[in-house]
Amino acid sequence: MGDPAGVGAEVALKALAQGGCPCEPVLIGPRSVWKAAAETFDLPLPRDIENIGDETAVYPRGVVDAACGRAAYEALMRAIELALAGEVDGIVTAPLNKASLHRAGIAESGHTEILARETAASRHALMLYSPRIACAFVTCHQSLASVPGSLTIEHVVDTVELLHNTLKFIRGMKNHIAMLGLNPHAGEEGIFGDEEKTILIPAVHELRSRGIEISDPLPPDTAFTPEALKRFDGHVCLYHDQGAIPFKMLSFDDGVNVTLGLPIVRTSPDHGTAFDIAWQGRANPSSMAAAIELAARL
Amino acid sequence: MGDPAGVGAEVALKALAQGGCPCEPVLIGPRSVWKAAAETFDLPLPRDIENIGDETAVYPRGVVDAACGRAAYEALMRAIELALAGEVDGIVTAPLNKASLHRAGIAESGHTEILARETAASRHALMLYSPRIACAFVTCHQSLASVPGSLTIEHVVDTVELLHNTLKFIRGMKNHIAMLGLNPHAGEEGIFGDEEKTILIPAVHELRSRGIEISDPLPPDTAFTPEALKRFDGHVCLYHDQGAIPFKMLSFDDGVNVTLGLPIVRTSPDHGTAFDIAWQGRANPSSMAAAIELAARL
Repeated sequence: MGDPAGVGAEVALKALAQGGCPCEPVLIGPRSVWKAAAETFDLPLPRDIENIGDETAVYPRGVVDAACGRAAYEALMRAIELALAGEVDGIVTAPLNKASLHRAGIAESGHTEILARETAASRHALMLYSPRIACAFVTCHQSLASVPGSLTIEHVVDTVELLHNTLKFIRGMKNHIAMLGLNPHAGEEGIFGDEEKTILIPAVHELRSRGIEISDPLPPDTAFTPEALKRFDGHVCLYHDQGAIPFKMLSFDDGVNVTLGLPIVRTSPDHGTAFDIAWQGRANPSSMAAAIELAARL
Repeated sequence: MGDPAGVGAEVALKALAQGGCPCEPVLIGPRSVWKAAAETFDLPLPRDIENIGDETAVYPRGVVDAACGRAAYEALMRAIELALAGEVDGIVTAPLNKASLHRAGIAESGHTEILARETAASRHALMLYSPRIACAFVTCHQSLASVPGSLTIEHVVDTVELLHNTLKFIRGMKNHIAMLGLNPHAGEEGIFGDEEKTILIPAVHELRSRGIEISDPLPPDTAFTPEALKRFDGHVCLYHDQGAIPFKMLSFDDGVNVTLGLPIVRTSPDHGTAFDIAWQGRANPSSMAAAIELAARL
Protein backbone atom coordinates (compact mmCIF):
# COMPACT_ATOMS: atom_id res chain seq x y z
CA MET A 1 0.00 0.00 0.00
CA GLY A 2 2.76 2.45 0.86
CA ASP A 3 1.74 5.70 2.52
CA PRO A 4 -2.08 5.96 2.53
CA ALA A 5 -1.79 9.74 2.06
CA GLY A 6 -0.05 9.21 -1.30
CA VAL A 7 -0.80 7.72 -4.70
CA GLY A 8 0.05 4.11 -3.74
CA ALA A 9 -3.43 2.57 -3.52
CA GLU A 10 -4.55 4.41 -6.66
CA VAL A 11 -1.66 3.29 -8.89
CA ALA A 12 -1.82 -0.28 -7.53
CA LEU A 13 -5.53 -0.67 -8.31
CA LYS A 14 -5.17 1.06 -11.68
CA ALA A 15 -2.25 -1.18 -12.64
CA LEU A 16 -4.13 -4.32 -11.63
CA ALA A 17 -7.29 -3.12 -13.43
CA GLN A 18 -5.32 -2.85 -16.70
CA GLY A 19 -5.29 -6.65 -16.64
CA GLY A 20 -2.47 -8.82 -17.82
CA CYS A 21 -1.03 -9.09 -14.30
CA PRO A 22 1.05 -12.26 -14.50
CA CYS A 23 0.36 -13.22 -10.87
CA GLU A 24 -2.31 -13.47 -8.18
CA PRO A 25 -2.11 -10.20 -6.26
CA VAL A 26 -2.49 -9.83 -2.49
CA LEU A 27 -3.23 -6.27 -1.33
CA ILE A 28 -1.68 -5.43 2.03
CA GLY A 29 -2.81 -2.62 4.37
CA PRO A 30 -6.01 -1.37 6.01
CA ARG A 31 -8.99 -2.69 4.03
CA SER A 32 -10.66 0.73 4.54
CA VAL A 33 -7.96 2.44 2.47
CA TRP A 34 -8.13 -0.08 -0.38
CA LYS A 35 -11.93 0.12 -0.38
CA ALA A 36 -11.88 3.93 -0.44
CA ALA A 37 -9.49 3.90 -3.41
CA ALA A 38 -11.65 1.40 -5.33
CA GLU A 39 -14.76 3.51 -4.71
CA THR A 40 -13.15 6.90 -5.33
CA PHE A 41 -11.65 5.85 -8.66
CA ASP A 42 -14.35 3.35 -9.63
CA LEU A 43 -11.87 0.49 -9.93
CA PRO A 44 -12.31 -3.22 -9.22
CA LEU A 45 -11.05 -4.36 -5.80
CA PRO A 46 -9.14 -7.67 -5.89
CA ARG A 47 -10.54 -10.25 -3.50
CA ASP A 48 -7.37 -11.09 -1.59
CA ILE A 49 -6.69 -8.35 0.97
CA GLU A 50 -4.35 -8.82 3.93
CA ASN A 51 -6.08 -6.42 6.30
CA ILE A 52 -3.33 -4.98 8.49
CA GLY A 53 -3.09 -1.65 10.31
CA ASP A 54 -5.82 0.40 11.94
CA GLU A 55 -8.91 0.05 9.73
CA THR A 56 -10.95 2.57 11.72
CA ALA A 57 -8.39 5.40 11.67
CA VAL A 58 -9.02 8.47 9.51
CA TYR A 59 -6.02 8.80 7.22
CA PRO A 60 -5.45 12.32 5.92
CA ARG A 61 -4.58 12.69 2.23
CA GLY A 62 -1.68 14.50 0.62
CA VAL A 63 0.10 15.44 3.88
CA VAL A 64 2.81 14.21 6.23
CA ASP A 65 1.15 12.31 9.06
CA ALA A 66 2.27 9.93 11.82
CA ALA A 67 -0.72 7.58 11.46
CA CYS A 68 -0.02 7.23 7.74
CA GLY A 69 3.65 6.54 8.40
CA ARG A 70 2.65 3.90 10.94
CA ALA A 71 0.15 2.20 8.59
CA ALA A 72 2.68 2.14 5.73
CA TYR A 73 5.27 0.60 8.03
CA GLU A 74 2.92 -2.08 9.31
CA ALA A 75 1.90 -3.04 5.78
CA LEU A 76 5.54 -3.37 4.77
CA MET A 77 6.40 -5.48 7.82
CA ARG A 78 3.50 -7.82 7.07
CA ALA A 79 4.57 -8.11 3.44
CA ILE A 80 8.09 -9.07 4.48
CA GLU A 81 6.69 -11.66 6.89
CA LEU A 82 4.55 -13.22 4.15
CA ALA A 83 7.45 -13.24 1.70
CA LEU A 84 9.90 -14.80 4.15
CA ALA A 85 7.30 -17.45 4.98
CA GLY A 86 6.89 -18.21 1.29
CA GLU A 87 3.21 -17.24 1.33
CA VAL A 88 3.83 -14.68 -1.41
CA ASP A 89 6.50 -14.93 -4.12
CA GLY A 90 7.57 -11.31 -4.03
CA ILE A 91 6.75 -7.81 -2.80
CA VAL A 92 5.86 -4.76 -4.84
CA THR A 93 5.97 -1.73 -2.57
CA ALA A 94 4.15 1.56 -3.12
CA PRO A 95 5.90 4.81 -2.13
CA LEU A 96 6.62 5.83 1.45
CA ASN A 97 7.01 9.31 2.85
CA LYS A 98 10.17 9.49 4.93
CA ALA A 99 8.94 12.39 7.06
CA SER A 100 5.74 10.47 7.92
CA LEU A 101 7.83 7.44 8.87
CA HIS A 102 9.95 9.65 11.12
CA ARG A 103 6.82 11.10 12.78
CA ALA A 104 5.68 7.56 13.48
CA GLY A 105 8.97 6.99 15.29
CA ILE A 106 10.61 4.83 12.61
CA ALA A 107 14.27 5.65 12.22
CA GLU A 108 14.96 3.99 8.84
CA SER A 109 14.89 6.29 5.86
CA GLY A 110 13.01 3.97 3.53
CA HIS A 111 11.95 0.58 2.27
CA THR A 112 15.39 -0.66 1.40
CA GLU A 113 16.86 -0.13 4.85
CA ILE A 114 13.89 -1.84 6.50
CA LEU A 115 13.98 -4.74 4.05
CA ALA A 116 17.72 -5.22 4.56
CA ARG A 117 17.32 -5.27 8.34
CA GLU A 118 14.32 -7.61 8.41
CA THR A 119 15.78 -10.09 5.95
CA ALA A 120 19.28 -9.88 7.46
CA ALA A 121 20.72 -9.31 3.98
CA SER A 122 24.49 -9.15 4.22
CA ARG A 123 24.77 -7.07 1.05
CA HIS A 124 22.19 -5.31 -1.05
CA ALA A 125 21.93 -2.55 -3.63
CA LEU A 126 19.35 -0.49 -5.44
CA MET A 127 18.85 -1.03 -9.16
CA LEU A 128 16.77 1.23 -11.40
CA TYR A 129 15.53 -0.82 -14.31
CA SER A 130 13.74 -0.25 -17.58
CA PRO A 131 14.10 -2.01 -20.92
CA ARG A 132 16.33 0.89 -22.06
CA ILE A 133 18.71 1.35 -19.10
CA ALA A 134 19.66 -0.47 -15.88
CA CYS A 135 21.65 1.27 -13.14
CA ALA A 136 22.90 -0.24 -9.87
CA PHE A 137 24.10 2.08 -7.12
CA VAL A 138 27.13 1.69 -4.87
CA THR A 139 25.85 4.55 -2.68
CA CYS A 140 22.40 6.06 -2.85
CA HIS A 141 20.45 8.08 -0.30
CA GLN A 142 23.23 10.07 1.33
CA SER A 143 24.80 13.50 0.94
CA LEU A 144 27.15 14.03 -1.99
CA ALA A 145 29.90 15.07 0.45
CA SER A 146 29.76 11.65 2.12
CA VAL A 147 30.04 9.65 -1.11
CA PRO A 148 33.82 9.50 -1.73
CA GLY A 149 34.49 8.31 1.83
CA SER A 150 31.83 5.60 1.52
CA LEU A 151 33.39 3.83 -1.44
CA THR A 152 35.38 0.64 -0.87
CA ILE A 153 36.67 -2.00 -3.27
CA GLU A 154 34.52 -4.62 -1.55
CA HIS A 155 31.37 -2.53 -1.81
CA VAL A 156 31.95 -1.88 -5.52
CA VAL A 157 32.62 -5.58 -6.18
CA ASP A 158 29.45 -6.59 -4.29
CA THR A 159 27.28 -4.12 -6.20
CA VAL A 160 28.58 -5.23 -9.58
CA GLU A 161 28.07 -8.92 -8.74
CA LEU A 162 24.50 -8.28 -7.63
CA LEU A 163 23.77 -6.35 -10.84
CA HIS A 164 25.46 -8.98 -12.99
CA ASN A 165 23.50 -11.85 -11.42
CA THR A 166 20.17 -10.09 -11.79
CA LEU A 167 20.75 -8.98 -15.38
CA LYS A 168 21.78 -12.52 -16.27
CA PHE A 169 18.47 -13.70 -14.86
CA ILE A 170 16.34 -11.01 -16.53
CA ARG A 171 18.02 -11.15 -19.92
CA GLY A 172 19.17 -14.74 -19.87
CA MET A 173 22.51 -14.01 -21.49
CA LYS A 174 26.05 -12.78 -20.94
CA ASN A 175 26.04 -9.09 -20.16
CA HIS A 176 28.53 -6.29 -20.49
CA ILE A 177 28.66 -3.88 -17.57
CA ALA A 178 29.77 -0.23 -17.58
CA MET A 179 31.82 0.81 -14.54
CA LEU A 180 31.50 4.56 -14.06
CA GLY A 181 34.28 6.78 -12.79
CA LEU A 182 33.65 9.00 -9.78
CA ASN A 183 35.42 12.10 -11.01
CA PRO A 184 35.15 14.24 -14.16
CA HIS A 185 36.75 12.42 -17.12
CA ALA A 186 37.23 9.44 -14.72
CA GLY A 187 39.91 11.48 -12.94
CA GLU A 188 41.94 12.23 -16.11
CA GLU A 189 45.03 10.30 -15.03
CA GLY A 190 44.56 11.30 -11.40
CA ILE A 191 44.51 15.07 -12.02
CA PHE A 192 40.89 15.32 -10.77
CA GLY A 193 40.87 12.74 -7.97
CA ASP A 194 42.35 9.30 -7.42
CA GLU A 195 39.40 7.05 -6.47
CA GLU A 196 39.58 5.53 -9.95
CA LYS A 197 43.11 4.32 -9.24
CA THR A 198 42.76 3.36 -5.58
CA ILE A 199 39.28 1.79 -5.58
CA LEU A 200 37.66 1.37 -8.97
CA ILE A 201 40.47 -0.15 -11.05
CA PRO A 202 41.32 -2.72 -8.34
CA ALA A 203 37.60 -3.59 -8.14
CA VAL A 204 37.43 -4.03 -11.93
CA HIS A 205 40.45 -6.37 -11.86
CA GLU A 206 38.87 -8.47 -9.12
CA LEU A 207 35.57 -8.65 -11.03
CA ARG A 208 37.27 -9.72 -14.26
CA SER A 209 39.07 -12.45 -12.36
CA ARG A 210 35.59 -13.68 -11.39
CA GLY A 211 34.56 -13.83 -15.05
CA ILE A 212 32.48 -10.65 -15.18
CA GLU A 213 32.78 -8.59 -18.35
CA ILE A 214 33.15 -5.01 -17.15
CA SER A 215 34.64 -1.81 -18.57
CA ASP A 216 37.43 0.28 -17.12
CA PRO A 217 36.11 3.26 -15.10
CA LEU A 218 34.43 5.42 -17.76
CA PRO A 219 34.20 9.20 -18.01
CA PRO A 220 30.64 9.53 -16.64
CA ASP A 221 29.51 12.15 -19.14
CA THR A 222 29.93 9.92 -22.18
CA ALA A 223 28.73 6.70 -20.54
CA PHE A 224 25.04 7.34 -21.29
CA THR A 225 25.12 8.65 -24.84
CA PRO A 226 22.86 6.76 -27.27
CA GLU A 227 25.92 4.97 -28.62
CA ALA A 228 27.16 3.95 -25.13
CA LEU A 229 23.71 2.70 -24.12
CA LYS A 230 23.79 0.28 -27.04
CA ARG A 231 27.15 -1.07 -25.91
CA PHE A 232 26.31 -1.84 -22.28
CA ASP A 233 23.62 -3.92 -20.56
CA GLY A 234 23.94 -2.24 -17.17
CA HIS A 235 25.72 0.68 -15.49
CA VAL A 236 27.31 0.67 -12.04
CA CYS A 237 26.89 4.16 -10.59
CA LEU A 238 28.72 5.49 -7.57
CA TYR A 239 26.15 7.99 -6.30
CA HIS A 240 22.42 8.67 -6.63
CA ASP A 241 22.30 11.36 -9.29
CA GLN A 242 25.04 9.86 -11.46
CA GLY A 243 22.55 7.17 -12.42
CA ALA A 244 19.21 8.74 -11.53
CA ILE A 245 19.66 11.75 -13.86
CA PRO A 246 20.15 9.66 -17.03
CA PHE A 247 17.65 7.04 -15.89
CA LYS A 248 14.81 9.51 -15.38
CA MET A 249 15.61 11.25 -18.66
CA LEU A 250 15.08 7.97 -20.48
CA SER A 251 12.49 6.19 -18.34
CA PHE A 252 10.45 8.71 -16.42
CA ASP A 253 7.16 6.81 -16.63
CA ASP A 254 8.06 3.14 -16.66
CA GLY A 255 11.13 2.89 -14.42
CA VAL A 256 11.23 0.19 -11.75
CA ASN A 257 13.17 0.19 -8.52
CA VAL A 258 14.57 -3.25 -7.58
CA THR A 259 16.40 -4.17 -4.38
CA LEU A 260 19.23 -6.51 -5.30
CA GLY A 261 20.70 -8.98 -2.83
CA LEU A 262 17.66 -9.72 -0.67
CA PRO A 263 16.51 -13.31 -0.08
CA ILE A 264 13.09 -12.15 -1.34
CA VAL A 265 11.99 -10.41 -4.55
CA ARG A 266 11.18 -6.74 -4.12
CA THR A 267 10.35 -4.12 -6.72
CA SER A 268 8.61 -0.76 -6.59
CA PRO A 269 7.59 2.02 -8.92
CA ASP A 270 10.21 4.70 -9.47
CA HIS A 271 8.22 7.64 -8.09
CA GLY A 272 7.29 9.08 -4.72
CA THR A 273 4.04 9.58 -2.82
CA ALA A 274 3.20 12.56 -5.09
CA PHE A 275 1.17 14.26 -2.34
CA ASP A 276 0.40 17.12 -4.74
CA ILE A 277 -1.81 14.90 -6.88
CA ALA A 278 -2.77 12.20 -4.36
CA TRP A 279 -6.37 10.92 -4.38
CA GLN A 280 -7.26 13.02 -7.40
CA GLY A 281 -7.32 10.24 -9.99
CA ARG A 282 -4.44 11.80 -11.93
CA ALA A 283 -1.63 9.39 -10.98
CA ASN A 284 -0.01 7.44 -13.83
CA PRO A 285 0.15 3.68 -13.07
CA SER A 286 2.76 2.79 -15.75
CA SER A 287 5.67 2.52 -13.33
CA MET A 288 3.62 0.42 -10.87
CA ALA A 289 2.48 -1.86 -13.70
CA ALA A 290 6.12 -2.30 -14.80
CA ALA A 291 7.12 -3.03 -11.17
CA ILE A 292 4.45 -5.75 -10.87
CA GLU A 293 5.45 -7.26 -14.19
CA LEU A 294 9.18 -7.33 -13.30
CA ALA A 295 8.52 -8.80 -9.83
CA ALA A 296 6.52 -11.60 -11.45
CA ARG A 297 9.40 -12.34 -13.84
CA LEU A 298 11.95 -12.40 -11.01
CA MET B 1 44.45 25.10 -33.76
CA GLY B 2 44.50 23.29 -30.42
CA ASP B 3 46.86 20.36 -30.02
CA PRO B 4 48.41 19.55 -33.43
CA ALA B 5 48.42 15.85 -32.49
CA GLY B 6 44.61 15.90 -32.24
CA VAL B 7 41.60 16.48 -34.48
CA GLY B 8 41.63 20.30 -34.16
CA ALA B 9 42.96 21.32 -37.58
CA GLU B 10 40.82 18.67 -39.29
CA VAL B 11 37.49 19.71 -37.72
CA ALA B 12 38.28 23.42 -38.16
CA LEU B 13 38.98 23.08 -41.91
CA LYS B 14 36.02 20.73 -42.39
CA ALA B 15 33.67 23.12 -40.58
CA LEU B 16 34.89 26.10 -42.63
CA ALA B 17 34.66 24.07 -45.85
CA GLN B 18 30.96 23.41 -45.18
CA GLY B 19 30.48 27.09 -45.98
CA GLY B 20 27.97 29.35 -44.32
CA CYS B 21 30.56 30.58 -41.82
CA PRO B 22 29.12 33.91 -40.69
CA CYS B 23 32.55 35.51 -40.24
CA GLU B 24 35.99 35.94 -41.74
CA PRO B 25 38.14 33.23 -40.18
CA VAL B 26 41.75 33.65 -39.07
CA LEU B 27 43.60 30.36 -38.54
CA ILE B 28 46.18 30.49 -35.76
CA GLY B 29 49.14 28.13 -35.32
CA PRO B 30 52.07 26.81 -37.35
CA ARG B 31 51.27 27.19 -41.06
CA SER B 32 52.86 23.76 -41.65
CA VAL B 33 50.16 22.06 -39.56
CA TRP B 34 47.30 23.85 -41.29
CA LYS B 35 48.79 23.07 -44.68
CA ALA B 36 49.27 19.42 -43.83
CA ALA B 37 45.64 19.15 -42.73
CA ALA B 38 44.39 20.82 -45.93
CA GLU B 39 46.47 18.45 -48.06
CA THR B 40 45.75 15.29 -46.07
CA PHE B 41 41.99 15.81 -46.15
CA ASP B 42 41.80 17.60 -49.48
CA LEU B 43 40.16 20.67 -47.96
CA PRO B 44 40.45 24.34 -48.92
CA LEU B 45 42.90 26.38 -46.81
CA PRO B 46 41.60 29.83 -45.84
CA ARG B 47 43.93 32.63 -46.82
CA ASP B 48 44.29 34.33 -43.44
CA ILE B 49 46.75 32.34 -41.32
CA GLU B 50 48.44 33.78 -38.25
CA ASN B 51 51.63 31.70 -38.44
CA ILE B 52 52.76 31.21 -34.84
CA GLY B 53 54.77 28.42 -33.24
CA ASP B 54 57.62 26.40 -34.69
CA GLU B 55 56.79 25.77 -38.33
CA THR B 56 59.75 23.50 -38.92
CA ALA B 57 59.11 21.14 -36.01
CA VAL B 58 57.84 17.61 -36.68
CA TYR B 59 54.64 17.25 -34.69
CA PRO B 60 53.73 13.65 -33.88
CA ARG B 61 50.09 12.63 -34.32
CA GLY B 62 47.73 10.97 -31.86
CA VAL B 63 50.12 11.03 -28.88
CA VAL B 64 51.04 13.12 -25.85
CA ASP B 65 54.00 15.32 -26.77
CA ALA B 66 55.73 18.39 -25.30
CA ALA B 67 56.24 20.14 -28.66
CA CYS B 68 52.53 19.75 -29.42
CA GLY B 69 51.58 21.12 -26.02
CA ARG B 70 53.90 24.07 -26.59
CA ALA B 71 52.50 24.82 -30.07
CA ALA B 72 48.91 24.64 -28.81
CA TYR B 73 49.76 27.00 -25.97
CA GLU B 74 51.46 29.52 -28.24
CA ALA B 75 48.51 29.54 -30.65
CA LEU B 76 46.12 30.17 -27.78
CA MET B 77 48.25 33.00 -26.37
CA ARG B 78 48.38 34.67 -29.78
CA ALA B 79 44.59 34.32 -30.19
CA ILE B 80 44.04 36.00 -26.84
CA GLU B 81 46.41 38.80 -27.81
CA LEU B 82 44.54 39.40 -31.07
CA ALA B 83 41.15 39.32 -29.32
CA LEU B 84 42.21 41.71 -26.55
CA ALA B 85 43.61 44.08 -29.21
CA GLY B 86 40.30 43.94 -31.07
CA GLU B 87 41.93 42.47 -34.17
CA VAL B 88 39.56 39.49 -34.03
CA ASP B 89 36.01 39.54 -32.64
CA GLY B 90 36.19 36.24 -30.83
CA ILE B 91 38.13 33.02 -30.37
CA VAL B 92 37.08 29.48 -31.23
CA THR B 93 39.53 27.07 -29.66
CA ALA B 94 40.21 23.51 -30.77
CA PRO B 95 40.90 20.85 -28.14
CA LEU B 96 44.01 20.73 -25.96
CA ASN B 97 45.60 17.75 -24.34
CA LYS B 98 46.30 18.49 -20.69
CA ALA B 99 49.14 15.98 -20.41
CA SER B 100 50.89 17.53 -23.42
CA LEU B 101 50.51 20.98 -21.85
CA HIS B 102 52.03 19.63 -18.64
CA ARG B 103 54.97 18.12 -20.58
CA ALA B 104 55.54 21.54 -22.12
CA GLY B 105 55.82 22.96 -18.62
CA ILE B 106 52.44 24.70 -18.57
CA ALA B 107 50.74 24.37 -15.22
CA GLU B 108 47.17 25.36 -16.14
CA SER B 109 44.81 22.49 -16.75
CA GLY B 110 43.12 23.96 -19.81
CA HIS B 111 41.91 26.79 -21.99
CA THR B 112 39.58 28.30 -19.45
CA GLU B 113 42.21 28.76 -16.77
CA ILE B 114 44.65 30.32 -19.25
CA LEU B 115 41.98 32.62 -20.69
CA ALA B 116 40.90 33.74 -17.22
CA ARG B 117 44.47 34.55 -16.24
CA GLU B 118 45.40 36.36 -19.45
CA THR B 119 42.22 38.45 -19.55
CA ALA B 120 42.25 39.09 -15.78
CA ALA B 121 38.59 38.01 -15.59
CA SER B 122 37.34 38.47 -12.04
CA ARG B 123 34.66 35.82 -12.49
CA HIS B 124 34.03 33.28 -15.19
CA ALA B 125 32.19 30.03 -15.74
CA LEU B 126 31.85 27.26 -18.27
CA MET B 127 28.59 26.89 -20.18
CA LEU B 128 27.70 23.92 -22.37
CA TYR B 129 25.24 25.08 -24.99
CA SER B 130 23.06 23.55 -27.66
CA PRO B 131 19.63 24.58 -28.89
CA ARG B 132 18.13 21.88 -26.63
CA ILE B 133 19.96 22.41 -23.33
CA ALA B 134 22.26 25.01 -21.72
CA CYS B 135 24.22 24.22 -18.55
CA ALA B 136 26.47 26.58 -16.58
CA PHE B 137 28.85 25.11 -14.00
CA VAL B 138 29.65 26.43 -10.53
CA THR B 139 32.54 23.96 -10.29
CA CYS B 140 33.96 21.97 -13.14
CA HIS B 141 37.34 20.28 -13.57
CA GLN B 142 38.02 19.14 -10.02
CA SER B 143 37.56 15.97 -7.99
CA LEU B 144 34.05 15.17 -6.78
CA ALA B 145 35.33 15.09 -3.20
CA SER B 146 36.42 18.73 -3.46
CA VAL B 147 33.08 20.00 -4.80
CA PRO B 148 31.02 20.57 -1.64
CA GLY B 149 33.81 22.60 -0.01
CA SER B 150 34.18 24.76 -3.14
CA LEU B 151 30.60 26.04 -3.15
CA THR B 152 29.89 29.53 -1.83
CA ILE B 153 26.82 31.75 -2.10
CA GLU B 154 28.83 34.33 -4.02
CA HIS B 155 30.13 31.80 -6.51
CA VAL B 156 26.65 30.45 -7.18
CA VAL B 157 25.24 33.97 -7.61
CA ASP B 158 28.04 34.89 -10.03
CA THR B 159 27.53 31.78 -12.14
CA VAL B 160 23.78 32.30 -12.41
CA GLU B 161 24.21 35.95 -13.37
CA LEU B 162 26.71 35.07 -16.09
CA LEU B 163 24.36 32.41 -17.47
CA HIS B 164 21.37 34.72 -17.28
CA ASN B 165 23.14 37.53 -19.14
CA THR B 166 24.37 35.26 -21.90
CA LEU B 167 21.03 33.50 -22.41
CA LYS B 168 19.28 36.87 -22.56
CA PHE B 169 21.70 37.83 -25.32
CA ILE B 170 21.42 34.55 -27.26
CA ARG B 171 17.66 34.21 -26.97
CA GLY B 172 16.72 37.86 -26.70
CA MET B 173 14.05 37.27 -24.09
CA LYS B 174 13.36 36.73 -20.42
CA ASN B 175 14.60 33.35 -19.33
CA HIS B 176 13.75 30.92 -16.58
CA ILE B 177 16.69 29.25 -14.89
CA ALA B 178 16.77 25.89 -13.10
CA MET B 179 18.89 25.86 -9.92
CA LEU B 180 20.00 22.31 -9.20
CA GLY B 181 20.37 20.85 -5.74
CA LEU B 182 23.69 19.27 -4.77
CA ASN B 183 22.32 16.26 -2.91
CA PRO B 184 19.89 13.45 -3.81
CA HIS B 185 16.30 14.80 -3.80
CA ALA B 186 17.87 18.27 -3.17
CA GLY B 187 18.71 17.10 0.34
CA GLU B 188 15.16 15.97 1.21
CA GLU B 189 14.66 18.54 3.99
CA GLY B 190 18.28 18.30 5.09
CA ILE B 191 18.27 14.52 5.65
CA PHE B 192 20.86 14.01 2.85
CA GLY B 193 23.05 17.11 3.26
CA ASP B 194 22.46 20.78 4.05
CA GLU B 195 24.16 22.72 1.22
CA GLU B 196 20.70 23.45 -0.20
CA LYS B 197 19.79 25.29 2.99
CA THR B 198 23.09 26.96 3.77
CA ILE B 199 24.25 27.97 0.28
CA LEU B 200 21.74 27.40 -2.51
CA ILE B 201 18.54 28.83 -1.04
CA PRO B 202 20.28 32.04 0.15
CA ALA B 203 21.79 32.38 -3.35
CA VAL B 204 18.36 31.92 -4.95
CA HIS B 205 16.90 34.65 -2.70
CA GLU B 206 19.70 37.04 -3.61
CA LEU B 207 19.23 36.32 -7.33
CA ARG B 208 15.48 36.88 -7.18
CA SER B 209 16.09 40.22 -5.46
CA ARG B 210 18.17 41.09 -8.55
CA GLY B 211 15.23 40.28 -10.81
CA ILE B 212 16.38 36.88 -12.05
CA GLU B 213 13.70 34.24 -12.47
CA ILE B 214 15.16 31.09 -10.90
CA SER B 215 13.74 27.92 -9.36
CA ASP B 216 14.28 26.64 -5.85
CA PRO B 217 17.07 24.00 -5.67
CA LEU B 218 15.62 21.09 -7.68
CA PRO B 219 16.05 17.35 -7.15
CA PRO B 220 18.71 16.81 -9.81
CA ASP B 221 17.26 13.57 -11.15
CA THR B 222 14.00 15.12 -12.36
CA ALA B 223 15.50 18.40 -13.57
CA PHE B 224 16.36 17.07 -17.04
CA THR B 225 13.28 15.05 -17.96
CA PRO B 226 11.68 16.01 -21.28
CA GLU B 227 9.00 17.89 -19.37
CA ALA B 228 11.53 19.83 -17.24
CA LEU B 229 13.62 20.75 -20.28
CA LYS B 230 10.58 22.45 -21.77
CA ARG B 231 10.10 24.51 -18.61
CA PHE B 232 13.64 25.90 -18.26
CA ASP B 233 15.94 27.91 -20.55
CA GLY B 234 19.14 27.07 -18.69
CA HIS B 235 20.41 24.88 -15.84
CA VAL B 236 22.91 25.88 -13.15
CA CYS B 237 24.90 22.77 -12.25
CA LEU B 238 27.11 22.40 -9.21
CA TYR B 239 29.64 19.90 -10.56
CA HIS B 240 30.89 18.62 -13.90
CA ASP B 241 28.92 15.43 -14.39
CA GLN B 242 25.66 16.81 -12.98
CA GLY B 243 25.36 18.82 -16.18
CA ALA B 244 27.71 17.02 -18.56
CA ILE B 245 25.85 13.67 -18.32
CA PRO B 246 22.48 15.05 -19.47
CA PHE B 247 24.12 17.48 -21.89
CA LYS B 248 26.05 14.79 -23.76
CA MET B 249 23.01 12.50 -23.82
CA LEU B 250 21.07 15.20 -25.66
CA SER B 251 23.78 17.00 -27.64
CA PHE B 252 26.68 14.69 -28.25
CA ASP B 253 27.50 15.97 -31.73
CA ASP B 254 26.59 19.65 -31.73
CA GLY B 255 27.39 20.83 -28.20
CA VAL B 256 29.40 24.02 -27.75
CA ASN B 257 31.57 25.01 -24.83
CA VAL B 258 31.38 28.74 -23.99
CA THR B 259 33.43 30.59 -21.38
CA LEU B 260 31.14 33.09 -19.65
CA GLY B 261 32.45 36.22 -17.98
CA LEU B 262 35.52 36.95 -20.12
CA PRO B 263 36.01 40.35 -21.76
CA ILE B 264 36.36 38.46 -25.05
CA VAL B 265 34.13 35.93 -26.82
CA ARG B 266 35.35 32.35 -26.59
CA THR B 267 33.69 29.15 -27.69
CA SER B 268 34.97 25.67 -28.48
CA PRO B 269 33.65 22.32 -29.62
CA ASP B 270 32.51 20.02 -26.85
CA HIS B 271 34.96 17.19 -27.51
CA GLY B 272 38.58 16.38 -26.84
CA THR B 273 41.65 15.82 -28.99
CA ALA B 274 40.37 12.33 -29.92
CA PHE B 275 43.90 10.97 -30.39
CA ASP B 276 42.42 7.58 -31.31
CA ILE B 277 41.01 8.93 -34.59
CA ALA B 278 43.32 11.93 -35.15
CA TRP B 279 44.54 12.60 -38.71
CA GLN B 280 42.43 9.80 -40.13
CA GLY B 281 39.70 11.92 -41.71
CA ARG B 282 37.04 10.42 -39.45
CA ALA B 283 36.44 13.37 -37.09
CA ASN B 284 32.95 14.90 -37.08
CA PRO B 285 33.03 18.71 -37.50
CA SER B 286 29.45 19.37 -36.28
CA SER B 287 30.47 20.61 -32.85
CA MET B 288 33.22 22.85 -34.29
CA ALA B 289 30.75 24.26 -36.83
CA ALA B 290 28.27 25.00 -34.02
CA ALA B 291 31.06 26.63 -31.98
CA ILE B 292 32.00 28.92 -34.89
CA GLU B 293 28.36 29.81 -35.50
CA LEU B 294 27.71 30.63 -31.82
CA ALA B 295 30.90 32.70 -31.50
CA ALA B 296 29.81 34.75 -34.50
CA ARG B 297 26.40 35.39 -32.90
CA LEU B 298 27.96 36.43 -29.59
